[in-house]
Amino acid sequence: MAASFPLNAWYAVAWDHEIRHELLARTICNKKLVFYRRAADGCAVALEDACWHRLLPLSKGRLEGDELVCGYHGIAYDSHGRCTFMPSQETINPGACVRAYPVAERHRFVWVWPGDPALADPALVPDLHWNHDPAWVGDGRTIHVNCNYRLVLDNLMDLTHETFVHGSSIGNRAVAEAPFETTHGERTATVTRWMRDIEPPPFWRAQLGRPGNVDRWQIIRFEAPSTIAIDVGVAPAGTGAPEGDRSQGVNGFVLNTITPETESTCHYHWGFVRNYQRAEQRLTTELREGVARIFREDELILEAQQKAIEDHPDHVFYNLNIDAGAMWARRLIDRMLAAEAPPRLQAAE
Amino acid sequence: MAASFPLNAWYAVAWDHEIRHELLARTICNKKLVFYRRAADGCAVALEDACWHRLLPLSKGRLEGDELVCGYHGIAYDSHGRCTFMPSQETINPGACVRAYPVAERHRFVWVWPGDPALADPALVPDLHWNHDPAWVGDGRTIHVNCNYRLVLDNLMDLTHETFVHGSSIGNRAVAEAPFETTHGERTATVTRWMRDIEPPPFWRAQLGRPGNVDRWQIIRFEAPSTIAIDVGVAPAGTGAPEGDRSQGVNGFVLNTITPETESTCHYHWGFVRNYQRAEQRLTTELREGVARIFREDELILEAQQKAIEDHPDHVFYNLNIDAGAMWARRLIDRMLAAEAPPRLQAAE
Amino acid sequence: MAASFPLNAWYAVAWDHEIRHELLARTICNKKLVFYRRAADGCAVALEDACWHRLLPLSKGRLEGDELVCGYHGIAYDSHGRCTFMPSQETINPGACVRAYPVAERHRFVWVWPGDPALADPALVPDLHWNHDPAWVGDGRTIHVNCNYRLVLDNLMDLTHETFVHGSSIGNRAVAEAPFETTHGERTATVTRWMRDIEPPPFWRAQLGRPGNVDRWQIIRFEAPSTIAIDVGVAPAGTGAPEGDRSQGVNGFVLNTITPETESTCHYHWGFVRNYQRAEQRLTTELREGVARIFREDELILEAQQKAIEDHPDHVFYNLNIDAGAMWARRLIDRMLAAEAPPRLQAAE
Repeated sequence: MAASFPLNAWYAVAWDHEIRHELLARTICNKKLVFYRRAADGCAVALEDACWHRLLPLSKGRLEGDELVCGYHGIAYDSHGRCTFMPSQETINPGACVRAYPVAERHRFVWVWPGDPALADPALVPDLHWNHDPAWVGDGRTIHVNCNYRLVLDNLMDLTHETFVHGSSIGNRAVAEAPFETTHGERTATVTRWMRDIEPPPFWRAQLGRPGNVDRWQIIRFEAPSTIAIDVGVAPAGTGAPEGDRSQGVNGFVLNTITPETESTCHYHWGFVRNYQRAEQRLTTELREGVARIFREDELILEAQQKAIEDHPDHVFYNLNIDAGAMWARRLIDRMLAAEAPPRLQAAE
Repeated sequence: MAASFPLNAWYAVAWDHEIRHELLARTICNKKLVFYRRAADGCAVALEDACWHRLLPLSKGRLEGDELVCGYHGIAYDSHGRCTFMPSQETINPGACVRAYPVAERHRFVWVWPGDPALADPALVPDLHWNHDPAWVGDGRTIHVNCNYRLVLDNLMDLTHETFVHGSSIGNRAVAEAPFETTHGERTATVTRWMRDIEPPPFWRAQLGRPGNVDRWQIIRFEAPSTIAIDVGVAPAGTGAPEGDRSQGVNGFVLNTITPETESTCHYHWGFVRNYQRAEQRLTTELREGVARIFREDELILEAQQKAIEDHPDHVFYNLNIDAGAMWARRLIDRMLAAEAPPRLQAAE
Repeated sequence: MAASFPLNAWYAVAWDHEIRHELLARTICNKKLVFYRRAADGCAVALEDACWHRLLPLSKGRLEGDELVCGYHGIAYDSHGRCTFMPSQETINPGACVRAYPVAERHRFVWVWPGDPALADPALVPDLHWNHDPAWVGDGRTIHVNCNYRLVLDNLMDLTHETFVHGSSIGNRAVAEAPFETTHGERTATVTRWMRDIEPPPFWRAQLGRPGNVDRWQIIRFEAPSTIAIDVGVAPAGTGAPEGDRSQGVNGFVLNTITPETESTCHYHWGFVRNYQRAEQRLTTELREGVARIFREDELILEAQQKAIEDHPDHVFYNLNIDAGAMWARRLIDRMLAAEAPPRLQAAE
């Protein structure tokens, strides 16, 4: 079965603070990798997590300075994956090495490029600039979900599910009933939904901090292959938010980037940042915990859906109007996959 | 591999009191189903447990009145499986539905017909009338066993195993030594064993409540594909039980109906009813718990046997005289399977 | 996939004291076997652990005298595997039996021959005589390791790993740096390493009980298919040990015999015996516990290596100088496997 994820893309490995001068094993796009930060210059490093000699995961070994020493026979590698020591012999086999992967660090995440290193342009790191922009403040987490990464994308590209999955916090009937618009570019797809003059759900009433109806917005921006930034907020009804004046409202961004681990599991990195009450550390913590609770509701759904799909391997899915955004996301992913397919296979299509 | 269970048959889903106005997920004959009882008329309902839209198990959703609402996007179905609501759109795709299965309620069990609904004749529900006949009183349980359902049938069709598996309760040498007779009809097979003038095993001595030898009987009646009612009892030796006068004895029925879950697991519904000391609620409880203990002894054997069979996938089994009843049961099942096979396969045999 | 272990060989089942007049189930070379010691003459018995009738593991049954009675229908077998009783029938099917396997008892282990019984010559039991020789004293254990048995052999045939895996006890740089010699015979391969005038690692300093440099030796003797006896010790530097006079030193043998359970698991029987302070029971216990701690360090490496190999099924391994001994061990095993291959396959090579 062909992989469902392109390899020529940047995928978030971990939050920047999680990569330290110590070994971290993580599987990304079915590749077992080991990560660490060099002491010499603070740069993050990604190597194949299997010793050239006997395949023992190098993450079971240890760092000596910026070299990685295998925990079995002491074979050592520099941070480019070149072997620098072999036991009981003077010369080193010239081909002895493990593969190194391009790494980038941006928007508070460390990213790895599992595909062709010649194509690894740092300019292609997905846009999550709100995560380090001083105009926005917030925090996030990484969760491991037992589902294909695209099921998380589907979930985020259609927020009508808030009504049914998150009824006690951010969902209400208005989300399922409001019309929305879908647009797309070469690598992005956007779903815009405005809910005018509605009663806000509990979460947003608390954020706004005053009674009365609101204009609520959800502007979902997908960037292929697996990053979604959602512009969310409410403003008192009729104060001009739909027309561009959000000054009376509260605004947040739900930042999501999902990294395939295997075909049926993924690492889901998310953050929530806001542009109001930025000095309130307590609010930052409350929001992080609140969003974490909401995402656990999604997790149960996503894992049940993954099992159901595995039980029905040949199922052809029906799509509803609400699936328009997710369908565009998948179409853009499919284009990336097609671009990576071997030429002969492309000719045969 | 062809399934080992016919689909055109009634299988017990659960005890009647277990199906309530709430969602119950159960896999039957490899089909994931969701059950509930309608509020409107109290009838039990069986639907495919996978939403038409994205396959999420409907059992993860909720009832709204007698409609089932998916827990992801709120797609709603009536109790016939027809879609009645889709989010964010006015019209409903006319093909949107989940499969509904015929259900019957009889003998204190709810039954489902996983095969062709046109053939689902309620008159074909297996005979377990003792379970609701006021002349008999008792109780039972459902256990989940990790073995193919036919291994439970084999176990029940030959009770010589009581001697070796249940030596502390109902087994003794007499069962393994007594001769027996096997007869069969179109859908039934019967094994009759009389043990005359024997010392009763502990269980039956306690039921009879007096010393001395007994005439003991075991009349095992199989009804295809997976129901077995066993007429069991003892009477003081020489008081005429073998000739038809059981008036001095005690008589019970072990009621068993086994529902395939998968090829290697099953739901085993059993009850024990008696026609003596019927007002003694305490005895009903003691018997249910006692039989449950005995069946746990079988469970260990059956699960070990299943594992051994999986370890020897091509093993051809040898049969002993004691296997005559089980062989007839399997033959009647095979006839049902052959009747369900596609015509071309039948011709090829 | 062809098995990685020859069948025509003696494999250690258990320590002699572990085989008693009770049933012990153990899988050896993918064969499920049941072992017990006869009451009549104390001999160990190995039978196929699956009843002829319905495959129930006989280890779930019980001994009656020296006969094994199946726990399901009471079918009985003598210690040669011949059926002696069937329930409810006078005659016994003449073919009814389970396979019996040749057993030997030597060097404090019970051994079984899973292959052709005609070839089971007790003279072929691997040499571990130190384990019962009064000149040596010690103790050992059996551990279950989740790796192919040859990974344990690789580990033992190259002790440079001590430097990296066991740095706190028996390893230091000298092991990885010292030269070694490899020789081999028809069924044996030997790796000899002398480390002259070195600082001893903590373990050996404690055994020798005096300060100063030592001459240290490791003479690793492999006997196909899976037994390795390692002559280890230290003597004060310059007292003549390399030339044959070990009288000033301390000497031990690490005795290892590894029994394949499946392709990816094994039973690893090991002992450590010494020829010094033989009356010190406390030292015997300390050494057994100390070696057990060291072997747990190996176990973590071996199981990680097995998983990595399963993740890279087609990997071709590179070999270093240090692998010379392990390569000879594998070559001798491959010869045994080739000798067992069906003639046609041999011709095709």
